[in-house]
Amino acid sequence: MTRERLYLFDTTLRDGAQTNGVDFTLHDKQLIAKMLDELGVDYVEGGYPGANPTDTEFFATKPGLAHARFTAFGMTRRAGRSASNDPGLAALLEAKADAICFVAKSSAYQVRVALETTNKENLASIRDSVAAAKKAGREVMLDCEHFFDGYKEDPAFALACAKAAYDSGARWVVLCDTNGGTMPHEVETIVGEVVKLIPGDHLGIHAHNDTEQAVANSLAAVRAGARQIQGTLNGLGERCGNANLCSLIPTLRLKSEFADRFEIGVTNEKLATLMTASHTLDDMLNRAPNRHAPYVGESAFVTKTGIHASAVMKDPQTYEHVRPEAVGNHRKVLVSDQAGRSNVIAELDRAGIAYDKNDPKLARLVEELKEREAAGYAYESANASFELLARRTLGRVPDYFHVEQFDVNVEQRYNANGQRVTVAMAVVKVDVDGEKLISAAEGNGPVNALDVALRKDLGKFQKFIEGLRLIDYRVRILNGGTEAVTRVLIESADETGETWSTIGVSPNIIDASFQALMDSVIYKLVKSGAPA
Amino acid sequence: MTRERLYLFDTTLRDGAQTNGVDFTLHDKQLIAKMLDELGVDYVEGGYPGANPTDTEFFATKPGLAHARFTAFGMTRRAGRSASNDPGLAALLEAKADAICFVAKSSAYQVRVALETTNKENLASIRDSVAAAKKAGREVMLDCEHFFDGYKEDPAFALACAKAAYDSGARWVVLCDTNGGTMPHEVETIVGEVVKLIPGDHLGIHAHNDTEQAVANSLAAVRAGARQIQGTLNGLGERCGNANLCSLIPTLRLKSEFADRFEIGVTNEKLATLMTASHTLDDMLNRAPNRHAPYVGESAFVTKTGIHASAVMKDPQTYEHVRPEAVGNHRKVLVSDQAGRSNVIAELDRAGIAYDKNDPKLARLVEELKEREAAGYAYESANASFELLARRTLGRVPDYFHVEQFDVNVEQRYNANGQRVTVAMAVVKVDVDGEKLISAAEGNGPVNALDVALRKDLGKFQKFIEGLRLIDYRVRILNGGTEAVTRVLIESADETGETWSTIGVSPNIIDASFQALMDSVIYKLVKSGAPA
Repeated sequence: MTRERLYLFDTTLRDGAQTNGVDFTLHDKQLIAKMLDELGVDYVEGGYPGANPTDTEFFATKPGLAHARFTAFGMTRRAGRSASNDPGLAALLEAKADAICFVAKSSAYQVRVALETTNKENLASIRDSVAAAKKAGREVMLDCEHFFDGYKEDPAFALACAKAAYDSGARWVVLCDTNGGTMPHEVETIVGEVVKLIPGDHLGIHAHNDTEQAVANSLAAVRAGARQIQGTLNGLGERCGNANLCSLIPTLRLKSEFADRFEIGVTNEKLATLMTASHTLDDMLNRAPNRHAPYVGESAFVTKTGIHASAVMKDPQTYEHVRPEAVGNHRKVLVSDQAGRSNVIAELDRAGIAYDKNDPKLARLVEELKEREAAGYAYESANASFELLARRTLGRVPDYFHVEQFDVNVEQRYNANGQRVTVAMAVVKVDVDGEKLISAAEGNGPVNALDVALRKDLGKFQKFIEGLRLIDYRVRILNGGTEAVTRVLIESADETGETWSTIGVSPNIIDASFQALMDSVIYKLVKSGAPA
Repeated sequence: MTRERLYLFDTTLRDGAQTNGVDFTLHDKQLIAKMLDELGVDYVEGGYPGANPTDTEFFATKPGLAHARFTAFGMTRRAGRSASNDPGLAALLEAKADAICFVAKSSAYQVRVALETTNKENLASIRDSVAAAKKAGREVMLDCEHFFDGYKEDPAFALACAKAAYDSGARWVVLCDTNGGTMPHEVETIVGEVVKLIPGDHLGIHAHNDTEQAVANSLAAVRAGARQIQGTLNGLGERCGNANLCSLIPTLRLKSEFADRFEIGVTNEKLATLMTASHTLDDMLNRAPNRHAPYVGESAFVTKTGIHASAVMKDPQTYEHVRPEAVGNHRKVLVSDQAGRSNVIAELDRAGIAYDKNDPKLARLVEELKEREAAGYAYESANASFELLARRTLGRVPDYFHVEQFDVNVEQRYNANGQRVTVAMAVVKVDVDGEKLISAAEGNGPVNALDVALRKDLGKFQKFIEGLRLIDYRVRILNGGTEAVTRVLIESADETGETWSTIGVSPNIIDASFQALMDSVIYKLVKSGAPA
């Protein structure tokens, strides 16, 4: 059976750049365009040349993309101007791009209220702009802004806008749910009407996530005949974001209903790099990845419930809708207060820790975990502390060094200039093979001071921890009231890019923080293969 | 036109508790159950009594819910046991709940692989368990686990499981997309088949978000006839989460297709508290709210694009699919401070603080709040700190006392008996009307020691703060990396039962904590009417 071609249009660098808090540099844009091209999307919309200096510069030279068509976004000519006398349109035609994606209103209400012009002039602007870009040798698309709302209000005008673009030679007419409020069955019905006028392989869908249905809306449009999907990596975009390509691509590739009917540019081999692409973008933007993201989230294939865990170990298909490896993710069975022996074994396997199923130490580890979780430890959020506890209980962590005592002081007072200052200072005394090492340090706060002092001089182990740094620190009080304990979670990273989490629990926040710091340092020593 | 009743079933405290990284305390569960009840959901599933100590304790007494039915979750009787001789079922029947929601497999594959029993025994277990719970006077539901996958594989058996529950007297038969891989049109088709056997007002839908379509799947089921939706606040839940009630409720209430046909328990008045409920849950879990969440996200109604902003200012409807105020959110146009000012005024009205609309101090307060929020303060979660800042800027908080300096020390060492101990000690020097009062105290940790020392002797104000106690303490690091700041939120209570929240932000955790402690003490003095 021949499969129809379905095209992926990425707008991470244009609509995604509208995300509150996102600002791409030119270098970011170059890297991301390359990454998208390698992933196998068909169009990379780079930005809006003429709208800001970064985008103008980005379109001054064409990035060398192997497969994807580099696309410039911009407005159709303004009302009352000719196409040849519109500076915005001229900038767009000068941009070094394979394709141009125009945006124009397709709602009579928007034409009247936002543009303050006439329907007739709006249609003329579409025709003139598409024709001019086509004449300049570009592949042309039209984003029909507010198409679905416009259709509900005045279907004839919305259709006339779409048809004007198609008749003027646009390769693609893209139907936009600009405000993101349309429901999937409405999309399906309306696209079903549009395909009666314009062939589906010239129709695209551009959905926003304002009701959490951008993915469903995109798939509904495909079911009704559209053959281009616009979206962004990680669903970046204004307000609640655009349709998330990291959710759409695996569904199109792995769910038989779509995979059997359609061919997309993302091969199975490339699909296995999707999680990396998603996390690379987050890293570039310094955003914490969404752990719960479909397919590519760290927790997307995590099982916490004990009864589920034992079923997953019998056959993963019992609780997995697709194989995690297909998108570069992996299965994870959590250790938690509901978990039993099967969970612990799965985690040991995953961490690559050898054990003997009949070793009584294994039973002791399960008990130890239960007791500690009852006391407030949450090992599911602290992979490195879990590994250390497991290795210790099974008898395999060297006593690298020993902290004899520490002392930390925080003082708030007026300094010599009459300014109020807060000063934190810490002293740590460590015994390394009988050698006593005392280090002191100042810090932004007591934990920072302790951290710096602890890692200042570990004697012969110092060289193994040089790349270690803390990247996150979180605190919670458990069982509020008199028996409150403090739980501290620390996330660390090193020069290899690996990150790990450690935990400490104590009535005293400093004590809990110090436990988590110690686990982080010792985990780094274990993983660096420091000699005992 | 009479509208049909659509029921909302919240499983934040049960399926939501399976979220990687989420651990509810008993106190959390009590607060959240109350919040859900106030929001207007019909069922609050509290947990799985017998599965862990927290849930067992939660079900030992019934929380006083005004409207919602308190529901216990658990398994049907085990294969090979009688209903009267199954300890799990007995624990469930003993739980103080209005309703019991059983879970049972409805997939032949799962029965064979995961349960290792027969289809016949599975059906008998459903019948026996439903009958036993019904006999015990409970409203009974059955979660048909893996219903959609089961239906695709063996429709007769999946339907037989659902029918067995219904025929045995279950009020609701809930169709679960346990692995979260089903597409909306499949849900619609399959539910359409089920309603031929079981009336829709006895059918529920339980969807997971593994393809980012849990919301669409839930709505597709309703369109096909189901009349109960199960979901969680903020879409908490194992892996990628459950259907997000914070997206579903506004859609059901505000989109005419649903609002015209269905009545839900969440009134328009309650809907306007949805954003607060969503953020309260995040705060309780110490999770950063998703800024891009549909409806309730901080960025859900933010316009960044210049051209969009000017259209929004002409008529908000140009770029908004619903009114932000309907869900307690607000419009934010990054080029205008309109939103800020009206927001502040609404908050002052809420706190009962008098102001003059033309007072230039009001503009100063708006500016001050903006700067502080940019620096990391989150006044939304700190009502008392907001009130103090507002009263101070408008000129109405006395300088009760002045902290000249403090000093806190934490030491970990061996004591005389060779035990490792951690000792925290603090000294605070206060000026009350020229009188210098120095107090010292030990504590469980540095913040506790500071708190005790600060409140030990405030001279003539001491009698006004006697009832004050801290009930929660939370810490977050913002903007990870070199410019990290620490945000501390403290919840306090007093003898009247009133609780209030205060905030502190600083690079130094002790400094941030002290700010929040000070605000708490001063708020108590203001509210006690202590004379200046």
